Amino acid sequence: MSVIYHKVALIGLGLIASSMALGMRKHGLASRIVGHARSAETRATALELGLVEQVFDTAAEAVKDADLVVFCVPIGVMADLAAEVAPHLKPGATISDVGSVKKAVVDAISPHVPLGVHFIPAHPLAGTEHSGPRSGFAGLFKNRWCLLTPLPDTEPEALTRLKAFWTALGANVDEMDPEHHDLVLAVTSHAPHLIAYTMVGVADDLKRVTEGEVINYSAAGFRDFTRIAASDPTMWRDVFLNNKEATLEILGRFTEELFDLQRAIRRGNGQQLFDYFTRTRAIRRGIIEAGQDTDAPDFGRTSKD
Amino acid sequence: MSVIYHKVALIGLGLIASSMALGMRKHGLASRIVGHARSAETRATALELGLVEQVFDTAAEAVKDADLVVFCVPIGVMADLAAEVAPHLKPGATISDVGSVKKAVVDAISPHVPLGVHFIPAHPLAGTEHSGPRSGFAGLFKNRWCLLTPLPDTEPEALTRLKAFWTALGANVDEMDPEHHDLVLAVTSHAPHLIAYTMVGVADDLKRVTEGEVINYSAAGFRDFTRIAASDPTMWRDVFLNNKEATLEILGRFTEELFDLQRAIRRGNGQQLFDYFTRTRAIRRGIIEAGQDTDAPDFGRTSKD
Repeated sequence: MSVIYHKVALIGLGLIASSMALGMRKHGLASRIVGHARSAETRATALELGLVEQVFDTAAEAVKDADLVVFCVPIGVMADLAAEVAPHLKPGATISDVGSVKKAVVDAISPHVPLGVHFIPAHPLAGTEHSGPRSGFAGLFKNRWCLLTPLPDTEPEALTRLKAFWTALGANVDEMDPEHHDLVLAVTSHAPHLIAYTMVGVADDLKRVTEGEVINYSAAGFRDFTRIAASDPTMWRDVFLNNKEATLEILGRFTEELFDLQRAIRRGNGQQLFDYFTRTRAIRRGIIEAGQDTDAPDFGRTSKD
Repeated sequence: MSVIYHKVALIGLGLIASSMALGMRKHGLASRIVGHARSAETRATALELGLVEQVFDTAAEAVKDADLVVFCVPIGVMADLAAEVAPHLKPGATISDVGSVKKAVVDAISPHVPLGVHFIPAHPLAGTEHSGPRSGFAGLFKNRWCLLTPLPDTEPEALTRLKAFWTALGANVDEMDPEHHDLVLAVTSHAPHLIAYTMVGVADDLKRVTEGEVINYSAAGFRDFTRIAASDPTMWRDVFLNNKEATLEILGRFTEELFDLQRAIRRGNGQQLFDYFTRTRAIRRGIIEAGQDTDAPDFGRTSKD
């Protein structure tokens, strides 16, 4: 691969930024990668791991001369960050982000973007339940989607370049408008996360069932919830605060439907349950066919013996 | 390993039974394995795969002379099955099951167990979202729990033998009373499954978000729900109908808690969300330490490059 951006500045050096840095190095997508993180410890770790060649104490210094600036920080701090770096952005630079909500990010960043700088919001649908600069790996984006939500006046050339960048990191790139993105993600990510957090919280509260039992016997379904519910608390707080309406709408539909199934259980309506469970099976099949998960019967366990 | 039961009869030849058969063969736990399934196709497949050396058209024939009889069928058919096979059980035989609910299984089977036959309910906490005789593998029970819920008058020797059998299949064996089992599983398995089924159903209903989008962008949380929601519909219908009270109680607590978090989102109470999400992270840590999942950052993806 060849260099796509001469100098890239990563603001925030957690799971996503460290995976981007490793991916860029592996595929030679940038001549220089620099970074900034609020925590001195994170900055030191990023240097020690060789994720970036230089770290700066402030975001303003880090973005200087950068051709691509990526905000890899919780959504709640993006507006202040944009205001801080705006005067220091190079004309012709592209500013982007990796936030899980897009309408709020557009609202937070747009007002600060100087003329001649390209702002293209992005959301790589990739992650693990781990966070911090040590949790990244170059393959994180491989065969995952990266959704771009360009604004109406986005320059085509800048957009093409950012698409090429994410494609080179291994992602499949798609475009949609910010509001639609937020609704789709409320269904596929935000509501499921809140539900998983809630179920894990309930288990924790339940005093008659000791923690030891919940943990020991987690393999039968609950385990997957705990993985989802172990994601970064700051990031997820900001997701819910910034995609309030769509998340609450989906959660409303969810509880409506859950109550209906609860009533079927209470009344012993086995046919309704059976039909419902049969229908949901088909969706799983579609996900496997779309290559977003594997069909391996032991899903990821290392040994079959 | 040495033979634990001379002749074993598996009634029902799906995922669990086929995994048991492969495990027994691998570790030499039985001299003879026979089976019965209602479907002629399943019986033929079990023979073809060499899971059992003989299949019978009726359960009554299959249990003849068996030292261990295991009901690997949905809970809803266990009472009729017990009534059918009871007159054909060998004195001194052990009859067991693999049902996900234990109180209802005890109520269904106990009245039919002849004097001199040992009835010991069991529940291996293992499975995948696949079903049928082709989905089994010998390692399914490895490092998973198998919960036995022996009745007060269970003969110690018969219990020790069944424990040795499950231990030899790779499981960690524990004992508890049936009611407590059903409450623990309502938390760790039954409620999470209903929740996952519901969330997948909601996504399917949502017409503004096309199915293609839900499927393509599932990697961000929803995917794990679809895996859970792809489990066998008949089995799960019977689980909910037979663990009604505990499941409804846990679901009641769940919605109470979910409403509280929804209100926090609506009111913009970020601190409450942050604190909640921080608490749930700790449970995940416990599960990894208990060996019930791995900490791998790419959880099961085959390649890191």
